[in-house]
Amino acid sequence: MEFTAKQISELLNGTVEGDENVIVNSFSKIEEGKPGSLSFLANPKYTNYIYETEASVVLVNNTFVSSKEIKSTLIRVEDSYKSIAQLLEIYNSMTEKPSGIEKQAFVHKKAKTGKNVYVGAFAYIGKGAVIGNNVQIYPGAYIGNDVQIGENSVIYPGVKIYYKTQIGKDCTIHAGSVIGADGFGFAPNTDGAFLKIAQIGNVIIEDNVELGALVTIDRATMGSTIIRKGVKLDNHNHVAHNVEIGQNTVIAAQSGIAGTAKIGENCMFGGQVGISPHVKIANGTKLSAQSGIANSVKKEDSILMGAPAYDIRQYHKSYIHFKNLDKIVKRLDELEKKLNNEV
Amino acid sequence: MEFTAKQISELLNGTVEGDENVIVNSFSKIEEGKPGSLSFLANPKYTNYIYETEASVVLVNNTFVSSKEIKSTLIRVEDSYKSIAQLLEIYNSMTEKPSGIEKQAFVHKKAKTGKNVYVGAFAYIGKGAVIGNNVQIYPGAYIGNDVQIGENSVIYPGVKIYYKTQIGKDCTIHAGSVIGADGFGFAPNTDGAFLKIAQIGNVIIEDNVELGALVTIDRATMGSTIIRKGVKLDNHNHVAHNVEIGQNTVIAAQSGIAGTAKIGENCMFGGQVGISPHVKIANGTKLSAQSGIANSVKKEDSILMGAPAYDIRQYHKSYIHFKNLDKIVKRLDELEKKLNNEV
Amino acid sequence: MEFTAKQISELLNGTVEGDENVIVNSFSKIEEGKPGSLSFLANPKYTNYIYETEASVVLVNNTFVSSKEIKSTLIRVEDSYKSIAQLLEIYNSMTEKPSGIEKQAFVHKKAKTGKNVYVGAFAYIGKGAVIGNNVQIYPGAYIGNDVQIGENSVIYPGVKIYYKTQIGKDCTIHAGSVIGADGFGFAPNTDGAFLKIAQIGNVIIEDNVELGALVTIDRATMGSTIIRKGVKLDNHNHVAHNVEIGQNTVIAAQSGIAGTAKIGENCMFGGQVGISPHVKIANGTKLSAQSGIANSVKKEDSILMGAPAYDIRQYHKSYIHFKNLDKIVKRLDELEKKLNNEV
Repeated sequence: MEFTAKQISELLNGTVEGDENVIVNSFSKIEEGKPGSLSFLANPKYTNYIYETEASVVLVNNTFVSSKEIKSTLIRVEDSYKSIAQLLEIYNSMTEKPSGIEKQAFVHKKAKTGKNVYVGAFAYIGKGAVIGNNVQIYPGAYIGNDVQIGENSVIYPGVKIYYKTQIGKDCTIHAGSVIGADGFGFAPNTDGAFLKIAQIGNVIIEDNVELGALVTIDRATMGSTIIRKGVKLDNHNHVAHNVEIGQNTVIAAQSGIAGTAKIGENCMFGGQVGISPHVKIANGTKLSAQSGIANSVKKEDSILMGAPAYDIRQYHKSYIHFKNLDKIVKRLDELEKKLNNEV
Repeated sequence: MEFTAKQISELLNGTVEGDENVIVNSFSKIEEGKPGSLSFLANPKYTNYIYETEASVVLVNNTFVSSKEIKSTLIRVEDSYKSIAQLLEIYNSMTEKPSGIEKQAFVHKKAKTGKNVYVGAFAYIGKGAVIGNNVQIYPGAYIGNDVQIGENSVIYPGVKIYYKTQIGKDCTIHAGSVIGADGFGFAPNTDGAFLKIAQIGNVIIEDNVELGALVTIDRATMGSTIIRKGVKLDNHNHVAHNVEIGQNTVIAAQSGIAGTAKIGENCMFGGQVGISPHVKIANGTKLSAQSGIANSVKKEDSILMGAPAYDIRQYHKSYIHFKNLDKIVKRLDELEKKLNNEV
Repeated sequence: MEFTAKQISELLNGTVEGDENVIVNSFSKIEEGKPGSLSFLANPKYTNYIYETEASVVLVNNTFVSSKEIKSTLIRVEDSYKSIAQLLEIYNSMTEKPSGIEKQAFVHKKAKTGKNVYVGAFAYIGKGAVIGNNVQIYPGAYIGNDVQIGENSVIYPGVKIYYKTQIGKDCTIHAGSVIGADGFGFAPNTDGAFLKIAQIGNVIIEDNVELGALVTIDRATMGSTIIRKGVKLDNHNHVAHNVEIGQNTVIAAQSGIAGTAKIGENCMFGGQVGISPHVKIANGTKLSAQSGIANSVKKEDSILMGAPAYDIRQYHKSYIHFKNLDKIVKRLDELEKKLNNEV
């Protein structure tokens, strides 16, 4: 697949500066740009690379002003990051997609599959499951009884989805994730042992959700654990029973949300964050990586850090003093000495 | 499945207050109670909801005293939480359980399977494995050579159990967990590379253990990694080689226990806890979420927090001061100024 | 398999002290040594056990000097830890290895498999995949299109490898790990929703790498995520898109490395460490468990702790004061009182 700068520019509604006939056939990062590749400049931190890059074509924002000569052909667009995302998507959509039901798949006779569905070998689709049009289910995935999966969703290899889970349209679930396993519910017995609380609820995942690899979302004890539309969870996230995550919230890898917590909309959490059971997190909350939330966050758009977490600027101030505690205590020693000598 | 309040009350050995003929066919949480559902009140925090709930029937403790009128029929029992657990279990046990050996399963001719066993499609049972009566092995699970699994245990989809692992009776292992992978053992070479130490031990899991989804328990270098009876580990837990976890200990999600650590009985750990190699943790130790244990905990029933963890009340005191460090240092500045001016 | 002390000594080029005809048939740790077993003493902490152990034979360093009588036969070698590693490896290599392509495996007709390959039942090998000689692919593993796997590598059950991943020689990947899932890349839209950035790069794993169970290594947005030769990653590690990990770096369980971070050679990270996006970590950096790295580490061989992490000795000093903050603030109160009384 080869394109000229002119062709790409037309696709993106951009304008060319330089040789419009130069040909590219791959993508590269601007700091690693090679001849024949297309790159982009979005983050101003990387501006210096544009004067050195070997990339044949570079996408830049309309507002970009060069301060030196540039070897590459430029394509000016309104938002270079979105334009590169658009091109990557086009490139990606040109790779061959699997289709059909492979011979070694297991599809229960009482399951329903839509049009143009892919079911890979060793995938298992249980009784009463309903699989929408254009859904792709990769090899070794397990779709339990009565699970519903909406149109265009992609279930990667080895994903395990327990019975009665509902998944919306245009969702992506990466390999090895487990949806609908039992919530962690036990009642203590008098002898120190624990009695299991049966988990009879389910999991509901709305449209346009993406889950990374090896994510777990537990079924509710009663009712539903709910992931609202547009949520993005990175690898190794843990979502406990009866949690609800509001729409368009994004959570980085290895974070954990304990039972019955309610996470607002448009939140952004860093990696390895921990949320205590039963808390509510206001819309737009941002949590720094490794933060721990012990109590509800009531003010919207808070930016928090620490364990337990509080205002990130305050945290940074405290942490600078923490690093200096040895000096601070020596100052205190000094003062005490002075005062005691005086007295 | 429909029941009257009277029928449920008889089952639980309770007493009815209100309409004993009202019919329920589902469960609900008290704050989300709907007509036709049965709910319960166990945690006093939720008491206010009982005056507003739409649930047709609510289980309450014998000791419950109402302060306002309640629309729902009440069933009084000794322990409403245990009663609801009992009902959920009954409800759960009425859902169809899979049975038989599905055609696409692989069962080695030298493996032994007990009576009334379920082996799902694409499950693999290796040479010399011994599977007890009533065991359920879901699709895509892997049972290595010479693995033993005791009666009534449930192995969910995609669980991977390496050779020679021993699993007791009445255990539950959720999807994607990996039991018996090599411990992380390497010896440094003089050239900076690492030499693998072969891990020739195994894993022993005693009776009535529940492991969540995507848990790892590594095999011992020599000897056994041991999970004692009644232990409950939540999703994404990591248990390294040669660890021992004492009976009825409960650990929340994403915690990690490093090599050769010995965890006592009846401990409770929050999520994302880390335990250093070789330490011993006394019986009854409670660890707050995200704690880190660097040294052995010798006193039983300690409640610890922080990294490294220490007494939780002391930690909370220190943390309040930490949050105020900026003010504290300003007070110190002030004092120094005063003293220096004086002098 | 039984050996005399003499036979083992000859194998290891050691010297026997005591009965050279004593027979052993198993391994044990020195503190749990049983008659008929072989044990070793490497860590001086365990020296006391040598006077009590029931092990029939103990490997010790040539430099070992006993202070009391020892019942066991000793074999003196240059490095007892390396010798035991060598023996474990010999023992391990004597256990039966699977071979051949099991009937229920799926191997695409356009995939290539080398000599002496094992492909277990329900394993899937996609179009264009190239599998080297002596590779073992256990049941339920998924090898995507155009994946390459070098000679002697072992892919344990249920590992999922996405298309175009390249894996070197002598690698080991434990069960359930996911290599090549999409990086976590999204661009915010004006309406609060997120647009997926197609991830069109791949993952390259060089020779002699070992990955534990349930590790994730995401494919690059463009270019490659790279794991250099000799790297060892423990269970539940997360490696994001476009990360590079330098050779012989070792990372304990549950650590996470965010996008585009570059980790140097010969680093050692404890468990549950978090690395921020885009940072560079110098060669030889050591990080204490649960550390968080927010900025690049420029000085080689630094030993760091905390979140954000800094010099470990400084951290320990600060932490001691942190634990005493309540007392420190009381001293400050006292000083203020004195000064105010005086004035």
